[in-house]
Amino acid sequence: MKIIEQAKAPNPRRVRIFLAEKGITVPSEEIDILKREHRSTAFTAQNPLQQVPVLVLDDGTAISESVAICRYFEEQQPEPALFGKGAMGRVNVEMWQRRMEFGLLYRVAQCFRHSHPAMAGIEEPQVKEWGDANRPRVIEVLSWLDTELAGCRYIAGGEYTIADITALVAVDFMKPARIERPGGLENLQRWYEDVASRPSAKA
Amino acid sequence: MKIIEQAKAPNPRRVRIFLAEKGITVPSEEIDILKREHRSTAFTAQNPLQQVPVLVLDDGTAISESVAICRYFEEQQPEPALFGKGAMGRVNVEMWQRRMEFGLLYRVAQCFRHSHPAMAGIEEPQVKEWGDANRPRVIEVLSWLDTELAGCRYIAGGEYTIADITALVAVDFMKPARIERPGGLENLQRWYEDVASRPSAKA
Repeated sequence: MKIIEQAKAPNPRRVRIFLAEKGITVPSEEIDILKREHRSTAFTAQNPLQQVPVLVLDDGTAISESVAICRYFEEQQPEPALFGKGAMGRVNVEMWQRRMEFGLLYRVAQCFRHSHPAMAGIEEPQVKEWGDANRPRVIEVLSWLDTELAGCRYIAGGEYTIADITALVAVDFMKPARIERPGGLENLQRWYEDVASRPSAKA
Repeated sequence: MKIIEQAKAPNPRRVRIFLAEKGITVPSEEIDILKREHRSTAFTAQNPLQQVPVLVLDDGTAISESVAICRYFEEQQPEPALFGKGAMGRVNVEMWQRRMEFGLLYRVAQCFRHSHPAMAGIEEPQVKEWGDANRPRVIEVLSWLDTELAGCRYIAGGEYTIADITALVAVDFMKPARIERPGGLENLQRWYEDVASRPSAKA
């Protein structure tokens, strides 16, 4: 078993944090997106959509999409339950994980891909106006999230889940995406310090 | 229990098809996005992200995000299993559902939102260049999907799943998004006729 990834990219980090929370170690292999290694024939055979990370099982099965990889490990080792506990818990985590993914991580990533000079030629066409359009949306979502976090310790309620992982990775990815974190969001800051101080955050 | 939705929007249709496949009937209530009813105080209280659909349970719990709503019904009534059967089945469906969502539905929707005149003033700013950039990507993904469908009846393999629902809704939404379906993709066409002829497709 191995994970093909790029250490600096946000999606592989989601999987690394998830694995660290589960206490699972999986060997990894690095490819360099700036050198377009994700477009190689060998990697395209593992994931035709040419995205990292990819989990390759011992029988050769290749699983792509970060959340599908995380679900594989949740199925293999259910505890701690990072996709939620019980039927309503799983539904609630699904909702919050998607809110963090579409509302936050995806927008930060679009900003990075469409406005960072290093991504010119990788993201074709690079649409600067679209990159910039995502910046104020990210700030709006963070402000709303701050009010939601007034009533609970973690994103989806009282338990740390995959929704916290997606949100943490999104907030940290704001730096390379050059989006300044707004001040004064005290609940968000308290949550951030909490989840960023977990050993898994170093993964 | 009720679902707040807009009949013509793609995400509410995903939930309607899912429910039709399960044989579950849920009353629905329509809001008009063009009249900005999704920005009303009442609707924002149900979903702060102002998106349809929202499932409101009898105890007042509001569940948003289409896939979270589908998961609620999968948890309530597991058969037929639309999120996959067994651990590896569920992982495989998660991967394919996300490929269809990010690779296809999201791109068709971006094209619609950023190039359709009716969305000017709803999608602010409307970035025409970004809308147009998604058009060739959609065609690329469909061409790849055609090769994948050479070996299997449905998107995720031998069984009809939520991945087929997402893909069908995406393909049908190409019409309002003004993306012409490429000719010659015979496996895709065979799959489309198969899933579009199911009674659930009329939902």
